[in-house]
Amino acid sequence: MQPTIEWTNDTVVMIDQRKLPVREIYVRCRTASEVARAIRSMVIRGAPAIGVAAAMGIALGMRRSRATGTKQFATEFQKTCELLAATRPTAVNLFWAIERMKQVFAATAAAGASVDDLRERLTVEAHAIHDEDVASCRAMGAFGAALVPQNARILTHCNAGALATAGYGTALGVIRGAVEAGKKVTVLADETRPFLQGARLTAWELVKDGIDTTVITDNMAGAMMRLGHVDLVVVGADRIAANGDVANKIGTYSVAVLAREHGIPFYVAAPISTIDLATPDGSRIPIEERPDREVTHVGTSRLTPTGAHVRNPAFDVTPSRYVTAIITERGVARAPFEGSLSALVHGGLTVTGS
Amino acid sequence: MQPTIEWTNDTVVMIDQRKLPVREIYVRCRTASEVARAIRSMVIRGAPAIGVAAAMGIALGMRRSRATGTKQFATEFQKTCELLAATRPTAVNLFWAIERMKQVFAATAAAGASVDDLRERLTVEAHAIHDEDVASCRAMGAFGAALVPQNARILTHCNAGALATAGYGTALGVIRGAVEAGKKVTVLADETRPFLQGARLTAWELVKDGIDTTVITDNMAGAMMRLGHVDLVVVGADRIAANGDVANKIGTYSVAVLAREHGIPFYVAAPISTIDLATPDGSRIPIEERPDREVTHVGTSRLTPTGAHVRNPAFDVTPSRYVTAIITERGVARAPFEGSLSALVHGGLTVTGS
Repeated sequence: MQPTIEWTNDTVVMIDQRKLPVREIYVRCRTASEVARAIRSMVIRGAPAIGVAAAMGIALGMRRSRATGTKQFATEFQKTCELLAATRPTAVNLFWAIERMKQVFAATAAAGASVDDLRERLTVEAHAIHDEDVASCRAMGAFGAALVPQNARILTHCNAGALATAGYGTALGVIRGAVEAGKKVTVLADETRPFLQGARLTAWELVKDGIDTTVITDNMAGAMMRLGHVDLVVVGADRIAANGDVANKIGTYSVAVLAREHGIPFYVAAPISTIDLATPDGSRIPIEERPDREVTHVGTSRLTPTGAHVRNPAFDVTPSRYVTAIITERGVARAPFEGSLSALVHGGLTVTGS
Repeated sequence: MQPTIEWTNDTVVMIDQRKLPVREIYVRCRTASEVARAIRSMVIRGAPAIGVAAAMGIALGMRRSRATGTKQFATEFQKTCELLAATRPTAVNLFWAIERMKQVFAATAAAGASVDDLRERLTVEAHAIHDEDVASCRAMGAFGAALVPQNARILTHCNAGALATAGYGTALGVIRGAVEAGKKVTVLADETRPFLQGARLTAWELVKDGIDTTVITDNMAGAMMRLGHVDLVVVGADRIAANGDVANKIGTYSVAVLAREHGIPFYVAAPISTIDLATPDGSRIPIEERPDREVTHVGTSRLTPTGAHVRNPAFDVTPSRYVTAIITERGVARAPFEGSLSALVHGGLTVTGS
């Protein structure tokens, strides 16, 4: 499989996730604006992946800057960061990646670096964010694999896979980790309306990996659980508040409630960069409302009559009391999450709560 | 609005529900086989509507019979009943309507009626089933309206409307009854994948009636409840077991679990003909599995990759413990449902449980 996002010769290349699984088309971005447009229009999506894309977009933009002095370069850098920050509001990884680029810029500039030095340092940082993301996913996979029983039937929602990251995936990383650990698993993939990331992306990735995958409509998840067809749930996250509340793709909350009703473990897999200790709880997480057309149409088919309103919140918040554990690249956090998440973020140790 | 199903001049005319809301096309059935095909392919759907269609299909078929003797006529009648019974397995109204036609046939034949008399009697019965269905819906609407508070925000799943009945609707009949009683209501309609009855049919009906309607994807229902946007849920039913377990469109069970989690009343509106006292509980209700293509495609758009499996159970079972009350044309049943449903079926009185 081609990488989700790759930076070569001053071009950031992304697989167009809007066209999968029917067509494999690549979008080539040569400016920061093109990267911003790709994020906004969901050519690329998934919290870790858009963090990586934003970092690359900034570095790419600054490589193309014609500024000769550091002052003008700094002004352009600031504007480029704002451009990328305005693309999507919910996933905190975007802001985390931009902040990391800003810190590198500030530290390098403070050391009296030239414009060329700054360009080079930003480029190195963007590549580092990319590479670390893949490594984080593999670590999550290793930690998560231990939570997956032999012959597990795993339900997942949306796509938290290689396509949502720089590679390997978060929730799907846990599934891949279990498979690499020699476990046999089957996957139920919620199709995940309206953008259909489960049907289109998760199924495509997993089938390519030879993992047995069955797509269901979102509203079948409860019935499948009641019939005993689900052993565990694992999903990704777009932002995790300090208290463990999880913002993730719309519908995640329903899956979490249903999992608890049936005594099924509900796991969240996400890198440390998704944990936002500055946000105390889920009520403070901004939820993006996307265009009506994603709900009113599929392809060229119109689904709703003229005169009907629609809603299209892209995410929902799952209160931490529904979350069995949060799997990160530094270990697995359990309730009480205030302590376990903070320890993972600050301590960098493998910590588990009570 | 044109009727859902109408019988004129030896032709049964149905609005093609697969084409709504984009096109209003009518399918004209001139034989029992054409009616059976229309039911199987979902030109017409909804438990009460397919009961009416089956009765009309049988009567239409027997009007076209060339049998001269009652014995041959009886053989053809039996075959026609079998043809209609084989269309869809879950909705009990289908079998109820066929059984009613059989009983009328047997009683009329036993009285020494001619072939012409039998034809006429079957025609009258099919029309009676149609007319009684509309009257039942209006009675349900009147009983149900009392359960709807002023300014209620009502969530419904699938289409239990005029299009699912001979007219007025069951769940949507309750909404219409509330509006006729002077209450202001707004409706959240789950789009109801895979066949999209909510987006396509419920929204179309309600917008035509001037009722404020917002379509959401099925996976938004939980988030809407958590945000306090839902005051009550009302849905239809395809079969209600003696203990009050309810088979209805796939996804109903998830909505019921979510409603209870949020302390929101969950009502089922269905005619007495949907109550199947011969089926002790929901585990005995056959659940139809429909073709993969309903899940893998919307219109001409392919959603899933080659190699992914899909599931397509058309219905699920909601255990009676999640059901606040069942609204019928004879009154409202509450738990314990064994007693209250049996009293409604046998007594014909307005009964409510504890």
